[in-house]
Amino acid sequence: MGTTQDLARFVVGASYHDMPQDLTWHAKRCVLDSLGVSIGALHHPSVAILREFVQVVGGAPQATVLGSGLKTSVTNAALVNGHLAHVLDYDDTYMPPETILHGTAPVLPAALAIAEWKSIPGWRLLEAFILGFEVEARISLAMGRAHLEGGWHVTATVGTFGAAAAAGKLLGLDQISMTHALGIAGTLASGVTEMLGTMCKPLHPGKAAMHGVMAALLASKGFNSSSQVLEAPKGFGWVLAGDRNFAAVTDGLGERWELRRNGFKPYASGVVTHPIIDGVIQLRNRHGLQPDEVESIEAHTNPFVLVPTGKIEPKSGLEGKFSIYHCVAIAIIDGMVSAGQFTDQKVNDPKTVELRRRVHILPDESIRMDEAQVVLHLKDGQRLDVYVEHSMGTEQNPMTDEGLREKFLHLASPFLGQARGKGVIDSVDGLEQLTDVGDLARACVSSQAG
Amino acid sequence: MGTTQDLARFVVGASYHDMPQDLTWHAKRCVLDSLGVSIGALHHPSVAILREFVQVVGGAPQATVLGSGLKTSVTNAALVNGHLAHVLDYDDTYMPPETILHGTAPVLPAALAIAEWKSIPGWRLLEAFILGFEVEARISLAMGRAHLEGGWHVTATVGTFGAAAAAGKLLGLDQISMTHALGIAGTLASGVTEMLGTMCKPLHPGKAAMHGVMAALLASKGFNSSSQVLEAPKGFGWVLAGDRNFAAVTDGLGERWELRRNGFKPYASGVVTHPIIDGVIQLRNRHGLQPDEVESIEAHTNPFVLVPTGKIEPKSGLEGKFSIYHCVAIAIIDGMVSAGQFTDQKVNDPKTVELRRRVHILPDESIRMDEAQVVLHLKDGQRLDVYVEHSMGTEQNPMTDEGLREKFLHLASPFLGQARGKGVIDSVDGLEQLTDVGDLARACVSSQAG
Repeated sequence: MGTTQDLARFVVGASYHDMPQDLTWHAKRCVLDSLGVSIGALHHPSVAILREFVQVVGGAPQATVLGSGLKTSVTNAALVNGHLAHVLDYDDTYMPPETILHGTAPVLPAALAIAEWKSIPGWRLLEAFILGFEVEARISLAMGRAHLEGGWHVTATVGTFGAAAAAGKLLGLDQISMTHALGIAGTLASGVTEMLGTMCKPLHPGKAAMHGVMAALLASKGFNSSSQVLEAPKGFGWVLAGDRNFAAVTDGLGERWELRRNGFKPYASGVVTHPIIDGVIQLRNRHGLQPDEVESIEAHTNPFVLVPTGKIEPKSGLEGKFSIYHCVAIAIIDGMVSAGQFTDQKVNDPKTVELRRRVHILPDESIRMDEAQVVLHLKDGQRLDVYVEHSMGTEQNPMTDEGLREKFLHLASPFLGQARGKGVIDSVDGLEQLTDVGDLARACVSSQAG
Repeated sequence: MGTTQDLARFVVGASYHDMPQDLTWHAKRCVLDSLGVSIGALHHPSVAILREFVQVVGGAPQATVLGSGLKTSVTNAALVNGHLAHVLDYDDTYMPPETILHGTAPVLPAALAIAEWKSIPGWRLLEAFILGFEVEARISLAMGRAHLEGGWHVTATVGTFGAAAAAGKLLGLDQISMTHALGIAGTLASGVTEMLGTMCKPLHPGKAAMHGVMAALLASKGFNSSSQVLEAPKGFGWVLAGDRNFAAVTDGLGERWELRRNGFKPYASGVVTHPIIDGVIQLRNRHGLQPDEVESIEAHTNPFVLVPTGKIEPKSGLEGKFSIYHCVAIAIIDGMVSAGQFTDQKVNDPKTVELRRRVHILPDESIRMDEAQVVLHLKDGQRLDVYVEHSMGTEQNPMTDEGLREKFLHLASPFLGQARGKGVIDSVDGLEQLTDVGDLARACVSSQAG
């Protein structure tokens, strides 16, 4: 059989009860983090537009739009929730050498929508999520850097397969229909990196989630497709400029789990900025620094950092995320880099503008992407420096459970309130025991929701 | 300004009242032909699945699914109607040397859905359709053979832009939001040719229509995107393997109209089969031949014919479309090649099977795609031959209005009845006078609809 059918057979045959127990821990961290960054994005203008769109076109009240009281169709809910999960650019990141994928944003909303609709218990959500993540991660490895560098937004494209696999698992697809679901997903998959920095970037995992649900639902009714969408000469793998290392899709499937390599973001900017921010915050805290004590900042870093985040004079909150200069300045001023550090006001504050002009980035090919050396020159002549071996949130230096809970509450409690926020943490902690996943979706409704 | 913005400005500024009058005639032929091939496809199994899908997810009752009494959201209606228009592989084809595009299938359903929803008059539907067709045709020229041969289904990809432009025109987008609509469309555009021969092929214009409506609606509410989706280094044109002849998008825009080069299919198989079928039917009619008089058939043809339609022993109705051998045999037996010639029964009929084994295809590089030389050898020793310079339905040898009406009635009257079918013909004839396009969509409801 071919790659696509082998993958479908794996997804159909795998069972939560046979999976290594630590995957549950990994998956629940993804769920909590994704809910937090989604709820924290509720006031973004693009979210209001998408919500209005799904209200205009309408849909059966099957699943909840996170944070609001709105119930809509499974496809609509997947669309808005997938978008929400990526709006802040603060969601989890799978970043092996081959690729960069925000893996939870397309998969969890697809799974959550079907699970709420069908009143499915928590362990089955975890099972579907773990499998959906594995499917997209494996395909992202196969597509590799050629796909990424060819201008494809990996989260948008391979995310569609992950969403289809998760939704299909929850709908109980057999091997033939799972193969077709992957096929339909593959021919719906799209999303170009020209859209980075626009509302279309977070639309990408939203549409991937929506298309995954659509693919699984159509396949469940007998809609067919090619059964070799990944490996066929005119299929997804070859047409979308991949490295096409198809063996990566199936090698050690069910033995090696890619979810274990997923990372979380302590900061609300691109992962490439994280080692430098780590260093700056460590020095700030260690020496109790005030911003006006700092004369200038030097950061020795991998040269790639300046590709996505080289903007010297950002003008908006969104542009601030793509400026390592703003990230460093705001880390010194605020001591944290969360969603609140990327407002238009913060980016244009004269104090921040003045400080960011004294940030110097020194590219060095010998430094890895998750590594940095940071030097602060103080006005009194002191020189402080720190070496960051692996930035926080990577596989080698993971965020703690406590850190993830704090991040969740910081993002979610302005909307849910502290008590409800803690309730969501408890629900996720006991997710494998939850009898109806819908309870979790409904628990995330904002106290301000209309 | 860039290509994308120039194109958006053209669409926003163009007016029906300034367009050459013959475009109305061309557009109405597209509308009638598309309605016919859609209604003729109502009994296809994939249509039932898509209809069930949109009923499960639900939607506000904004637009009619052709041929049924079902009213659903504009996105859902565009999805099902775009699919319907391409199920029979019998819809119009734009085939300049650079590309192959089924241009009406993605654009008309998008325009029809918005027009019905907003009770828009017929002349505005024609305006939007003509502009949507121009947008996709121009982009297909720019993407050229590299896009097609790279494995992209042109109707699926560039069709999304055409649908967005048409829907956006009807929604009254200004230049900025039209640019964003094209951007959103470009990042939703997908569809690989591996899917040919599966239900996903007609899904392609369906999803293109749906995505076009979605893009236009989102942009109308202020959702943004890149403003250079076509020409940016990581945008649609460069990422999706185009020839990137961006000048083709804007050269002579508003002066030269690509709609004039659109062709219609007299036969329900790929256009490459048409010159040979033309020749066979001409000889059959000219000599009053019976199938059992024919010993063997030779067809001298462009070698490409065997690429999509080289299947020697088709087993199903669908496979029959991809077999020039079946097409020739059934043309001799039935004297016509419509949807009814591609049933499983016809393809497996021993008489057809026996005859198709006596069809010989002789590839010759010096013969154009729309040209053929056909020779019949009769059992009595006679040799009959005919030269087809341009097959029927091409720009050089267009189908007559009468021929299109006959095709429509042949396809639609089994569902609508003869009287209602003729009523639809009259409505399309007077489309520029129609006060509410919804009347047309509602007139296409089958007398058997539930």
